[in-house]
Amino acid sequence: MDAPEIAQVDPFHAMAIGRLAYELAGEGRDVIHMEYGQPSTGAPAAAIATAHRVLDSDPGGYWESTALLDRIARHYCEAYQVDIDREQVILTCGASPAFVLALSSLFVPGARVALARPGYVAYRNSLKTLYLEPVEIACGPAERYQVTAAALDALDPAPDGLILASPANPTGTVIAPRELAAIAEVCRRKNIRVVSDEIYHGLTYEGAAQSTLQHLPDAVVVNSFSKYYSMAGWRLGWLVVPPDRVAAARARMNNLFLTPSVLAQHAGLVAMDETAELESHVRTYARNRERLLAALPSLGLERIAPPDGAFYIYADIAHLTDDSLAFCQQLLRDTGVATAPGVDFDPVDGHRFIRFSFAVSTPLVEEAIARMVPWFAACTAKSTEASV
Amino acid sequence: MDAPEIAQVDPFHAMAIGRLAYELAGEGRDVIHMEYGQPSTGAPAAAIATAHRVLDSDPGGYWESTALLDRIARHYCEAYQVDIDREQVILTCGASPAFVLALSSLFVPGARVALARPGYVAYRNSLKTLYLEPVEIACGPAERYQVTAAALDALDPAPDGLILASPANPTGTVIAPRELAAIAEVCRRKNIRVVSDEIYHGLTYEGAAQSTLQHLPDAVVVNSFSKYYSMAGWRLGWLVVPPDRVAAARARMNNLFLTPSVLAQHAGLVAMDETAELESHVRTYARNRERLLAALPSLGLERIAPPDGAFYIYADIAHLTDDSLAFCQQLLRDTGVATAPGVDFDPVDGHRFIRFSFAVSTPLVEEAIARMVPWFAACTAKSTEASV
Repeated sequence: MDAPEIAQVDPFHAMAIGRLAYELAGEGRDVIHMEYGQPSTGAPAAAIATAHRVLDSDPGGYWESTALLDRIARHYCEAYQVDIDREQVILTCGASPAFVLALSSLFVPGARVALARPGYVAYRNSLKTLYLEPVEIACGPAERYQVTAAALDALDPAPDGLILASPANPTGTVIAPRELAAIAEVCRRKNIRVVSDEIYHGLTYEGAAQSTLQHLPDAVVVNSFSKYYSMAGWRLGWLVVPPDRVAAARARMNNLFLTPSVLAQHAGLVAMDETAELESHVRTYARNRERLLAALPSLGLERIAPPDGAFYIYADIAHLTDDSLAFCQQLLRDTGVATAPGVDFDPVDGHRFIRFSFAVSTPLVEEAIARMVPWFAACTAKSTEASV
Repeated sequence: MDAPEIAQVDPFHAMAIGRLAYELAGEGRDVIHMEYGQPSTGAPAAAIATAHRVLDSDPGGYWESTALLDRIARHYCEAYQVDIDREQVILTCGASPAFVLALSSLFVPGARVALARPGYVAYRNSLKTLYLEPVEIACGPAERYQVTAAALDALDPAPDGLILASPANPTGTVIAPRELAAIAEVCRRKNIRVVSDEIYHGLTYEGAAQSTLQHLPDAVVVNSFSKYYSMAGWRLGWLVVPPDRVAAARARMNNLFLTPSVLAQHAGLVAMDETAELESHVRTYARNRERLLAALPSLGLERIAPPDGAFYIYADIAHLTDDSLAFCQQLLRDTGVATAPGVDFDPVDGHRFIRFSFAVSTPLVEEAIARMVPWFAACTAKSTEASV
């Protein structure tokens, strides 16, 4: 068994930026972390209080909280008017392993799974690791950087599966309800199984996102406590699987992962009711988004994906560079502002995009803008000069 | 993509026993949990204190503790006199995903991977989920329930990989140093890649177990904080990968799992130095083991695997039943003592074995014995009657 036969999986470039950011911070530089998609706010206070209590009273072990399963099932009823059974919910150590479970419970090696490009890098890489074939659908501004029913229907042969992400990473765009219904229709007609990544639900600025379950009851939904619930470091996520895949997914969860963290399950259950605190984070993101949108013209960034949700702005920087990784590194070195290069999300066009994460405090967003305005001005001047 | 094409993965039968145990406990029954392989002691006090501190000071996020990577690398030097680089250590959400990473970084679908039968159920099921072919080596009392160099060498064709577990689950047997060296020699000669599960290291009663790394530097080692460190519910484990697989394994970790729990990493680092508290658990297990070994004859259980390590006794109950799952259920209903049926560990002969986990307090082991003696006596009498 030689190394070259093993599926080649790309590294996360944002992690290289993250490492450089921590290096610079270690040298005393004042770094603003806009490279990672993680809230800087921490878990809700009540969840932390619960964790303290559990730490002192429960030795822990391999355990699945049925109360949390029930609470998540109820969430689908309350948020989406979708009835699901507790048995359909599977708790995982974050959305990433949930995604592995979903793919492995639906598809066999060689299956073709469609997904939007740009998209979250781990989709492509998890598919490759499981020897599934990513079928990338190029999505640009005309499609709001999302898969459309027409683009899906045009694939010949039809794929076995489809990954949806709404709101999406890196763009933040949301699939409109009518389009989602049309996509569901194509999937039903062509027997395409859907994995719907709904990890950014709750973080929308132009109306709530719909769950794919509202249109397609046999979709597999991935979600987690890492974004809206501000608990990325706790590693807790979940899957909703249709009844015909519950046995396959549960057997995989037990064998591949056992159970998630006991503390995280206790804390997550409490977090789900801490709406006031969580919505205050959403208001912060909304404010940050406004600040960034207002500032982008002064950075010379005119072409961006419509940031309907999540906490990202994905901007076209083709007029400034054709090497987004080097660009992000230089921006970080010069200003202390860490961002993610488009190459993580799009192997074809990502060299000319940059992703800003605004899941930091508003003062930090304002400080980042203040540092970036002169830097982008100088960069634009240099580019204009070079192209004259 | 129809359901039957998906790899069939067996459920954990011990989990069914666990559910019944919790049901009975819910009805007010006094249940003794000897079905799961998890310490009942909880994390070391100093680790819990650290978790309290981190809860109040660190919002958490996607994070990998370099201090913990360093500490684990040092552990290999101290415990085994093996030099490894921090980069070779990969932190995971427990040993289970570590195992998935290991297999996926070493083998491609269709590869044949040898393993002992009986063995931990998730080995076989994780292999199947990744479309790898389990090549089971039947191991009985003559081989101390372990793979031998001779049995491995006799496989024709030679397998691509080998899973070692020493101490093993469910038997607790340890591979002797000389045998481990001989197995390593076969693996080198035949280019067989080894995944060595060392999760029960530290829990041995007849001399410490060796790491496969002492004989085979390119083995992949799986370990975790769930057993010796008494932190099962924290979901923290690690892999040691040889330099030629670091890139493949790291890319998989980032894409499939991101990072483990922040709290668990902080607490785990502290736990690694809490030797006094951890060794007191080992002394408890040693005492429990003595009690059980002394009691087994009065249960009529004469044929057991030599329990060199871990916290298990695997006993032959062929004279009492040919349905170990039903047997364990009846034992649980009648006495409140929960145990694991052999069918989880051995699809061929497991119907006539039972596994006792003695990772509970000594008074509970004594109470379990007191309840089991009359029950086994009655059971033996009934069997004898039936066979007359």
